[in-house]
Parts: sequence; C-alpha cells; structure tokens
Amino acid sequence: MAVTTRRADAQRNIAAILTAAAECLGRDPAVSTSEIAKAAGVGRVTLYGHFPSRAELVDAVFVQAIATGEETLGQVDLTGDPRDALTRLIESSWHLVDQYRALLLAAQDALPPGRVRELHADPMARVERLLERGRTENVFRTDLPTSWLVSVMHNVMHGAASEIQAGRITSEQAAPYITATLLAAFTPPKPE
Amino acid sequence: MAVTTRRADAQRNIAAILTAAAECLGRDPAVSTSEIAKAAGVGRVTLYGHFPSRAELVDAVFVQAIATGEETLGQVDLTGDPRDALTRLIESSWHLVDQYRALLLAAQDALPPGRVRELHADPMARVERLLERGRTENVFRTDLPTSWLVSVMHNVMHGAASEIQAGRITSEQAAPYITATLLAAFTPPKPE
Repeated sequence: MAVTTRRADAQRNIAAILTAAAECLGRDPAVSTSEIAKAAGVGRVTLYGHFPSRAELVDAVFVQAIATGEETLGQVDLTGDPRDALTRLIESSWHLVDQYRALLLAAQDALPPGRVRELHADPMARVERLLERGRTENVFRTDLPTSWLVSVMHNVMHGAASEIQAGRITSEQAAPYITATLLAAFTPPKPE
Repeated sequence: MAVTTRRADAQRNIAAILTAAAECLGRDPAVSTSEIAKAAGVGRVTLYGHFPSRAELVDAVFVQAIATGEETLGQVDLTGDPRDALTRLIESSWHLVDQYRALLLAAQDALPPGRVRELHADPMARVERLLERGRTENVFRTDLPTSWLVSVMHNVMHGAASEIQAGRITSEQAAPYITATLLAAFTPPKPE
C-alpha cells in the first residue's frame, strides 16, 4: 500500500514536472531547473530524482511534444497529388515547429548534436514515405537520395524557426516560404 | 621593457592557445580546455586569463577559421553565369565547411543560438551579392526574399555536415547534393 502510494506520488510528480517544464521552456528556452521545480510545486531534489540533468528533462519534454505532434500529423491527408500532400504536410508540420519553437531552441542548445533529429524519427519517416510515393510517380526527383531530401526539409524548416527568432521573417511568412523552397528543390531536374 | 616582454609573452600564449585549440577541436568537438591548455604548453590559469570560458575560446577559434576561409572564398570567380558562379562558390564553401566540420559542431554546441550564423556574416554577404545579381538577371527567383535564400543555403550546407557526421552521406557526395538542391530551390518558378 505504501509502495503503491509512493509510486502514485512519483507519477504525479513526473507529470507535474513535465507539464511545468513544457510551459516554462515554451516561454524561455534558457529557463533553469530550479524555476521549473518551483512552477511544478516540487523540490529540486525531487526533480533531480526523476531527471538527473537538465538535458534529460528537456529530452523528456521533447519526446512528449513529438508524441503530441504525431497525433496532429497523423490526421493530415497524404493521398492524392504528392505535391499537394507535401504542401499540407509542410503546413501542419510548420504549425508544430512554430508552436514548439522555444522548446526546439532549448533542445538544440541542451541536447547533444544529432539528438534533435533522432527525436524526429517518426515525423521524418512520414515525410520519407510521401517522398518515396512522389518519386515512384515521377513528381519528386530521384537523382538525390530520399534521406537527403528528408534532411533538407528538416533543415529548412528548423532554419525557418531561427529566421523568426532573429526577426528576419514572420511566423506567417514561414509556411509559404518553406513550401515554395521545398517544392522547387524536390522537382525533378529538366533534362539538359 | 618588462611590460613589453609581458605583452609579447601574452601574444605568444594567445597564439599558442588558438593554434592548439583549433587542432584539438578539429579532432574532438568535445575536447576540454585542460587538454587544450596542455597541448598549447600553457597552464590552465593562463588559458582562463585570456579566455575566461570555453565558449569564448571556441568563438575565437571560429572567428579565426572564418577569416582564413574568407581568404579562400575571395579567390572564387563570381563573374559570368550566376548559376555557374554559385556552383563554384558552393564547391569552395563546402570544402571549408567540411574541413572545419568538427569545429562547426563544437561551435553549434558551445555558442548561443544564432551566434554561428552571426559569425558567418562575411561569407553570407558574398552569397547575398551573388544571389542579388542572379535575381536582376532573372536567373534566380525573386518571389522569395534574398535573405531567405541565403539562410536556405546556410542551413542546407550545415545540414550536410550533420548528415556526414551521422554517416548518411559521404564528404564527396555533399557538394554535388548541395549544388543540385540549391540550384533547383533558387530557380524562378514557372508561371502556372
């Protein structure tokens, strides 16, 4: 009984910490773990008991954000003309990147190189399937590997988040810019 | 006289630290300042006297690498067909990104968001001038801002460094992939 209660307490604390961390990191990518503990209503020792480092906490919040995003992206209609499907997928994906922009910056800063991309495995697999279909239908180029095209989409989209951060583009401009850039980049080259 | 000697000593130490740091970071982006001090033949106190934080040292090494790179990029022929000129510029730029790949990873990890791009102000200004010329000659698209196109090039090129790091592409594949991607992305869209 005592063990069950302790377990329930732990789960409640973890949930409270993750919720508070998502909110705090969404406001300030550089927020400290002390502030997150305070917002979660737990002590720092409790927080460190569950998340021994700030990076582990940021990672866990990111895993949760990706899972939430996956629910949205799973609703996108990817049938029909692959270019139109890609446009819809970019639109939805961008809304997520934009919504989680501060968290993305926190993750890029706190997590080891390559980890942010690793955490995007599911959304990137969806892009890959769509690009593969478009390649078999001769709508997307086949002279470059699909994995490269997926990485270009990832980098252009995340680059847009930095452009907004730097004040060079607005959040509203991003989706049309990304779409115009990627549709052109993915078009089969004309034979010379 | 004593002051002059002390100043000469300081300059010699700074030069030794920067040389050692460039070499150490080029081998291992996560190298510690203690190892860099050791390689430079100076004490840690001396190193911290000149570079109070690891980030400041990485920043200084990066500034130096960009300055060296600028000498190379200044030699690239940017006259003639803007697409051919861009191909030559990508080729040369990529060799630099590839050569400084480990340093780039160290900088992305150690420096605040946006700083790596800020340090690229000179090479990016060169790209911008070439793109502007290509736009006036109707060779590059004008439906997206030049600053966006410059950022796409920056992100695709640096993304290629991560793709190599992850073992998904080889160093030899990168320049042709980047060129094929960017030339397509920068081409004026056909009227519908």
